[in-house]
Amino acid sequence: MFRSAAFVASIFSLYIAGAMLIPAAVDLYYGHSDWQVFLVCAMTTGAIALTVAAATGGRSPVRSTRLAFFVVVVLWATLGFVGALPLYMASFEVSFAGAVFESVSAITTTGSTVLVGLDNMPPGILLWRSLLNWIGGLGVVVLGLFFLPLLNVGGFSYFRIESSDIEDRPFERLASFLRALAAIYAVLTLLCATAYAVAGMSAFDAINHSMATLATGGFSTHDASFGFFENSAILWIGTVFMILGALPFSILILFVLRGRLDALRDPQIRLFLAYTAAIVLAVAIHRRVTADIPFGEALTSSAFNLVSIITTTGFASEDYTLWGPFAVTVVFFATFLGGCSGSTSGAIKAYRFFVLGRMLQNGLRTLIYGRSVQPLRYGNRVIDEEMQRSVVLFLAAFFLVWVAGSIALAAGGMDLVTALTASLTALTNVGPGLGPIIGPAGNFSTVGDYALWILSASMLLGRLEILAVLVLLTPTFWRN
Amino acid sequence: MFRSAAFVASIFSLYIAGAMLIPAAVDLYYGHSDWQVFLVCAMTTGAIALTVAAATGGRSPVRSTRLAFFVVVVLWATLGFVGALPLYMASFEVSFAGAVFESVSAITTTGSTVLVGLDNMPPGILLWRSLLNWIGGLGVVVLGLFFLPLLNVGGFSYFRIESSDIEDRPFERLASFLRALAAIYAVLTLLCATAYAVAGMSAFDAINHSMATLATGGFSTHDASFGFFENSAILWIGTVFMILGALPFSILILFVLRGRLDALRDPQIRLFLAYTAAIVLAVAIHRRVTADIPFGEALTSSAFNLVSIITTTGFASEDYTLWGPFAVTVVFFATFLGGCSGSTSGAIKAYRFFVLGRMLQNGLRTLIYGRSVQPLRYGNRVIDEEMQRSVVLFLAAFFLVWVAGSIALAAGGMDLVTALTASLTALTNVGPGLGPIIGPAGNFSTVGDYALWILSASMLLGRLEILAVLVLLTPTFWRN
Repeated sequence: MFRSAAFVASIFSLYIAGAMLIPAAVDLYYGHSDWQVFLVCAMTTGAIALTVAAATGGRSPVRSTRLAFFVVVVLWATLGFVGALPLYMASFEVSFAGAVFESVSAITTTGSTVLVGLDNMPPGILLWRSLLNWIGGLGVVVLGLFFLPLLNVGGFSYFRIESSDIEDRPFERLASFLRALAAIYAVLTLLCATAYAVAGMSAFDAINHSMATLATGGFSTHDASFGFFENSAILWIGTVFMILGALPFSILILFVLRGRLDALRDPQIRLFLAYTAAIVLAVAIHRRVTADIPFGEALTSSAFNLVSIITTTGFASEDYTLWGPFAVTVVFFATFLGGCSGSTSGAIKAYRFFVLGRMLQNGLRTLIYGRSVQPLRYGNRVIDEEMQRSVVLFLAAFFLVWVAGSIALAAGGMDLVTALTASLTALTNVGPGLGPIIGPAGNFSTVGDYALWILSASMLLGRLEILAVLVLLTPTFWRN
Repeated sequence: MFRSAAFVASIFSLYIAGAMLIPAAVDLYYGHSDWQVFLVCAMTTGAIALTVAAATGGRSPVRSTRLAFFVVVVLWATLGFVGALPLYMASFEVSFAGAVFESVSAITTTGSTVLVGLDNMPPGILLWRSLLNWIGGLGVVVLGLFFLPLLNVGGFSYFRIESSDIEDRPFERLASFLRALAAIYAVLTLLCATAYAVAGMSAFDAINHSMATLATGGFSTHDASFGFFENSAILWIGTVFMILGALPFSILILFVLRGRLDALRDPQIRLFLAYTAAIVLAVAIHRRVTADIPFGEALTSSAFNLVSIITTTGFASEDYTLWGPFAVTVVFFATFLGGCSGSTSGAIKAYRFFVLGRMLQNGLRTLIYGRSVQPLRYGNRVIDEEMQRSVVLFLAAFFLVWVAGSIALAAGGMDLVTALTASLTALTNVGPGLGPIIGPAGNFSTVGDYALWILSASMLLGRLEILAVLVLLTPTFWRN
């Protein structure tokens, strides 16, 4: 088990080492000395990864569920550490905990940062953060579409929805799906970058922000995030592509491969779009009424910032915590929501709310009329006991981890609102919290190493749908 | 259905009208003119109740689940309004919303107050609040032990645990159980009052506080609550009796009627005592370490104030929000906990956490090994699908109502922490929230009528285990 996990992690680390050459080239082009850091990191990582791969490769392991959980967790944790290397070695001061936090925040597409003064950072580092965001987003879609659902953790998978598609020759089909996915993800990113550039971003900003947008990651190249641009067109482009990133990529794969759009009838999509629209409108109308600003302006800022929270991206165009208690409370609860399963977004996600809503509806009916014989429906499919149980299991684990994280942070001296929202925003991979320290106008540079380690662990837990990590902590897992 | 509900509500209103004569007598004895208010209210209420009872009585209705839900909700709401009458008419200024809030807070054993200057209030009003607290506590035990579980809402009932006891002649047994319950409740209250008096309270304070203690209600006769007494013995007496109030009364009934203590092996009791001890100790140790005070003192104040929160009583001996972020965050989450099913306490309650814990444990095992064949166990009984579903249903409804309440309060201008904890503390019937306004050093006198109505509704929802009220809001309920 350890051997296989090490092998898989080393192979992926090799890719990351390769990716480090991109910021190296960029820093070299712009004449910044950090190109050496990236080159050294790439060579070191590559050499170690090759050695580990050679030492652990060869024998194909017995495939098992335990192995799958272990490999996924080891892989994500390894990538977090490998991604942190250039950040730690680069030409600015950051603690090791800070570098790991930044890297984990990137690959989990959270977007929280410990770095201040982004506007004056060398381009290589900025690109590296965006790249990790982007790679993390792709990794999460693969995980969410093809692996976690097979382990009964997280969402309706593409395979489960379209089981007729995979009954023959599953692996050939998997490969073609993966190629299609990567192509779609890349094309959408290019489209987004082009739109940003046309609307007025510099080429460098457009590329970085498009990667962070599609990944619903949220890293920016400016301390003021999207507030830097003061441009509504850019905000609306961001809003549209964040929503695209939060839709299940299985739809786009099906559309590209088969020209079919059936999956659009997926109830989770309708629920996600419905609650997003309701929240954006409610906040926009409330602002129009309470603050004397034009409705168009209120709608633009409400759409961008609330979509950013709901899709777990984490960009901000202004300090929405100044919009009054209604908006702040809505933001707090919106942090729990998330987009669709099989997307780059995190948090609880629309399909779980859908299942829970159906259970509640049915349960209330049952209270009046006794045991119901009608099965719960998700579109034209039945929500079986297994699926209900997995949703409940996730939610129980989610709240348990949120409570534990909040109390651990508070024990380190963090105030209530900061502790509650830091723990939450890490677990849901959103990015900003509430309060003056980690709110949209702040960052994580002052929370201290103790908190950073807790938050790094929370981000990984959230990204791996919590249960995939928690199983590793049960005695049952380690009993043979 | 309306006729039966009106009949039941009018019968109980008669009892409340009778109870109003007690504060009338006390005010007369102390020479306060409010005795007339109580007498007029008693006569008016009595006359109306008699008229309604006469008009609606006679025909025995068809017994049905729908009827039971409707009657319970109408009854509790009616008692809330009837109890508010003397408060509204008495010799101090309070809005109608405030009087209803105070009365609902009393009968739901919440203990939040809108009144300031309790120390100088006429004795009749103070006694009336405590009496409503006490009656509410008794009502909740009856509801929790004998009715709600039969409707599949809330807890393992006495009947379910000891089904062998009721198989023959259930109604004769029910009557004897109810008598035993009332006797035990009264005797415990007297014991508590005696202990308080011996430890130094005045007779009037001892009687009032003992009623509010056993009911885990939390109303005090002093603005400073238990801080007024500055007496550790009183704090420890309060701690012990709050814990007794949060234990299932079925145990005591069994003990008194049969001399049996089997129910002590009830897992919910062990879980409740375990988390209470863990939290009290953690906060005491943290205070000993961070603030330089003797451990004994830290333990006394931690035990009293945290037990008060966990048992959903709501007394305070000092402003624990000054104990630092760790204590504040623990208090926030402790507000969710509650005591045992079949007690006077509210909130989520230990048995639900027990069931959820078992589901989580089993679920994680299932993730590794596939479907589990072992049934979940609660002591030596099996937790069936029905019970699991009802726990999940409650939690889903609980969070939904909490979110809706918080957002509604924030829309009225309440800040985040106040809105979140006001909605929570009402729903869990705890009493105090967090923050300067409604924290242990504050009260609800300044939150405004809009918020008071929302909170009154939340208290009723929480007290009736939410689902009993929510079913009334489904279209299914009203379809014939």
